[in-house]
Amino acid sequence: MAVHKSNLLTDSLKGASQVFFMENPLSGILFFAAMAYASYASGVWATTIGAAIGVVIATLTARLLDCDDKSIASGLFGFNGVLVGAALPTFIAVSPQLWIYVVVGAAASTVVTAAFSATLTAKWGIPGSTGPFVLTGWLMVAGAYSFGGLLVTGDAPKLTTDYVQGMATISQPIELVQIFFRNIGQVYLLGNEISGAIILLGIFIASIPAGIAVAAGSLVAMVVSIGMGADPAVVSQGLYGFSPVLTALAVGVVFLKTSPKVMVYALLATVTTVFVQGALDVMVAPAGIPSFTAPYVLTMYLFIAPKKLLAPHPHRPVVGHMVGHDHTEAALSTKTT
Amino acid sequence: MAVHKSNLLTDSLKGASQVFFMENPLSGILFFAAMAYASYASGVWATTIGAAIGVVIATLTARLLDCDDKSIASGLFGFNGVLVGAALPTFIAVSPQLWIYVVVGAAASTVVTAAFSATLTAKWGIPGSTGPFVLTGWLMVAGAYSFGGLLVTGDAPKLTTDYVQGMATISQPIELVQIFFRNIGQVYLLGNEISGAIILLGIFIASIPAGIAVAAGSLVAMVVSIGMGADPAVVSQGLYGFSPVLTALAVGVVFLKTSPKVMVYALLATVTTVFVQGALDVMVAPAGIPSFTAPYVLTMYLFIAPKKLLAPHPHRPVVGHMVGHDHTEAALSTKTT
Amino acid sequence: MAVHKSNLLTDSLKGASQVFFMENPLSGILFFAAMAYASYASGVWATTIGAAIGVVIATLTARLLDCDDKSIASGLFGFNGVLVGAALPTFIAVSPQLWIYVVVGAAASTVVTAAFSATLTAKWGIPGSTGPFVLTGWLMVAGAYSFGGLLVTGDAPKLTTDYVQGMATISQPIELVQIFFRNIGQVYLLGNEISGAIILLGIFIASIPAGIAVAAGSLVAMVVSIGMGADPAVVSQGLYGFSPVLTALAVGVVFLKTSPKVMVYALLATVTTVFVQGALDVMVAPAGIPSFTAPYVLTMYLFIAPKKLLAPHPHRPVVGHMVGHDHTEAALSTKTT
Repeated sequence: MAVHKSNLLTDSLKGASQVFFMENPLSGILFFAAMAYASYASGVWATTIGAAIGVVIATLTARLLDCDDKSIASGLFGFNGVLVGAALPTFIAVSPQLWIYVVVGAAASTVVTAAFSATLTAKWGIPGSTGPFVLTGWLMVAGAYSFGGLLVTGDAPKLTTDYVQGMATISQPIELVQIFFRNIGQVYLLGNEISGAIILLGIFIASIPAGIAVAAGSLVAMVVSIGMGADPAVVSQGLYGFSPVLTALAVGVVFLKTSPKVMVYALLATVTTVFVQGALDVMVAPAGIPSFTAPYVLTMYLFIAPKKLLAPHPHRPVVGHMVGHDHTEAALSTKTT
Repeated sequence: MAVHKSNLLTDSLKGASQVFFMENPLSGILFFAAMAYASYASGVWATTIGAAIGVVIATLTARLLDCDDKSIASGLFGFNGVLVGAALPTFIAVSPQLWIYVVVGAAASTVVTAAFSATLTAKWGIPGSTGPFVLTGWLMVAGAYSFGGLLVTGDAPKLTTDYVQGMATISQPIELVQIFFRNIGQVYLLGNEISGAIILLGIFIASIPAGIAVAAGSLVAMVVSIGMGADPAVVSQGLYGFSPVLTALAVGVVFLKTSPKVMVYALLATVTTVFVQGALDVMVAPAGIPSFTAPYVLTMYLFIAPKKLLAPHPHRPVVGHMVGHDHTEAALSTKTT
Repeated sequence: MAVHKSNLLTDSLKGASQVFFMENPLSGILFFAAMAYASYASGVWATTIGAAIGVVIATLTARLLDCDDKSIASGLFGFNGVLVGAALPTFIAVSPQLWIYVVVGAAASTVVTAAFSATLTAKWGIPGSTGPFVLTGWLMVAGAYSFGGLLVTGDAPKLTTDYVQGMATISQPIELVQIFFRNIGQVYLLGNEISGAIILLGIFIASIPAGIAVAAGSLVAMVVSIGMGADPAVVSQGLYGFSPVLTALAVGVVFLKTSPKVMVYALLATVTTVFVQGALDVMVAPAGIPSFTAPYVLTMYLFIAPKKLLAPHPHRPVVGHMVGHDHTEAALSTKTT
């Protein structure tokens, strides 16, 4: 344990960076800076504090459960925890019970991550990615309606920095630029374009191809969601873009070997994710929960599952492209086989 | 690719026939004739056109993704696409965006088919069957509510040929005959008894036992749904019968070797499917989507999964019974193992 | 078959005892006594009769399908049937169609049990436990809304012995004692503290550690649900406790080898189950169905799946602790591999 403790900060920062499949403490610092900026702009700090608690608790839980050391050190047991920690204070008002909820939720996210790894990844070759966050987050937000100590803020979930609400059309070019960056920021539940720009910088620092894929995903999401006539107020907040951004990155760069054919495949996956975003928003509404990154998770699972049909060396991460990167989710898969 | 192209029409017609597990171009022609007749009767041609686009796009996508050639030639990558193409114009009004939706949905259905094949079939021995259609169709119809360019026609989904609505009881023997055939027609979302009769003819042409199973499934569904007091207006449209028809065929003939014991097992499965139909209609209603063939898919998965308990040679298709039949979904399973 | 028939009563009583992972006919007798006492107190006997029919039909179905003999003799094909048989008359008014429903539902529960065993257990190492009951029960209760011959009693499901409804706070110590026992009784859908006490006795007879885990689970559920501010009327009926009771027993004693670390892990799992209970109550409400033991099932699946991370000999039942116990669900897993 002594050996572990010296690296808890680094492991946690890598965990934050793994939300975008990076394993880079500097990216993690920038992602936290993006959260802090949004908290500063909105005056709501619980989300950033929750994210910090979440990633530390999730990483510590993985150590206590004797999970694979290399995976822990790569941040692979932290990225679902950081999202749980950021999401719960976004949708639930601050109270003593909220912090108990964040701690238990982050610890549980590590168990769920290990469960996905032992089944979906080890048996079916599908990376768990942020699926454990979606499942844990759904259960925790839905559960909050049942407990008097937890107040879900609004029937239709509202995000920390939804200051754009109420606009009817997307008319200004400047607004398209804002959407482009908000699409990226919303991966961390941040509807703030400056935060999105900081996050994009953090990705480019770790991997140029990853940054390009993220930018392309954001553009595709904008074109498709506006072209299909999605609600401008929702598009404007970046809520149609964050899942497609992750799909473009995951399918186009991280889990398949980039090639012209894979790029077409990733384009189909990204467009499909926009449609699935529209679908899941409708399907989870009766339960009063947000869709989180479920549109990405579902689409990515379906597009990665048949990977053998696509390339002789599928599911190979872009090892060479990432700074200081020698394990990815693929490594986790191998470990637990 | 040159070798492929010569067979696109045949592959697509086989794809249409695989909705009933047949691999017979002539059956496919009759199934398209059934759709065309219903379109002629209702004046709505978008469903038949959508089905044609769907099966061609799905088959072409499978070729582009280098899916297994024999499976493509057997129509196994087309039958989910033909259903997606028929279903979307059934529930969504015609618009430019609808056709984009049909093309993307059909292409995605091939990816989903490959995903089910690589996991459910290859790892758990359960045929995907029309599960990919159900998943893709649910997501596309639910998604349509989110996009201004797509208009879901009616809160409670209505089918193309629902001209029977409003009746209160089932009193005439002639109506029981109509229901018998509509139960079969509704597999292709056709509430038209003539279409149902054409489809049944197409099945008998390919396989006598298959035709008998389909007819028996339709009768069992009628007896159980009327006996349990299901809504006569819904029963009359054939909406309680199409999933049981598929269950009777799949469990009694296609995936298990027909025997007296398997026939009792298929009877239990068929009765269960009627109950699951009632259940899923209730469960998916809050999301505003139809249950499609999900009652069949869920019941069949559950009854086929433990097949080793039933027979020494389970999951063996009735090869000898089918004209020109040498691959079935079972073959797909073997290919991808 | 002749050899079988002589043991049908014993097999069925063991089936009843397997709801709590025991394989002890005497426990089964006490569990039936608990149901009978609640029926006597409420005047509703359909639940106890349904339970008896359910376990016998489920066990007979397993024999007809040639399921593994040892598993049948251990009651492993009966415990989902007994719960289906107890649950359907709890939520659906008595009618001729109800009894058809109970028989078909119990028979189907055996198929679902075999399906879970062949996939989740054999392929992923996760015990099915009461998952088949939850799935079958959900479908049957939801389906009842569609059939005129079946009357779901109340929109919000009410339980047989909900005579405690209407209370606003939990003020008396005596009430905490009642909740403690109702938490256990509700595993059999019995909101009756005397029934709960009889069941606890039946568990202690079979295994002291199991009895301790059940008592601890009930206490943890009380503390967490009251501390988080759950609806006192619901807490008072024991509806926040029955799933945590099963989680504490399953994770702490049955599927993992008890140790200090496993006890902490089981504590986290038990607390999580209380939250998941709150979540699933909200999530299944739109479909008009009760959550049944789904909070236990989902949490247990997630906490057992990564078992290799926890202990060198995980998933080993406490063979030595149980009277007359030589097969458990783990044995089922091995059989079907």
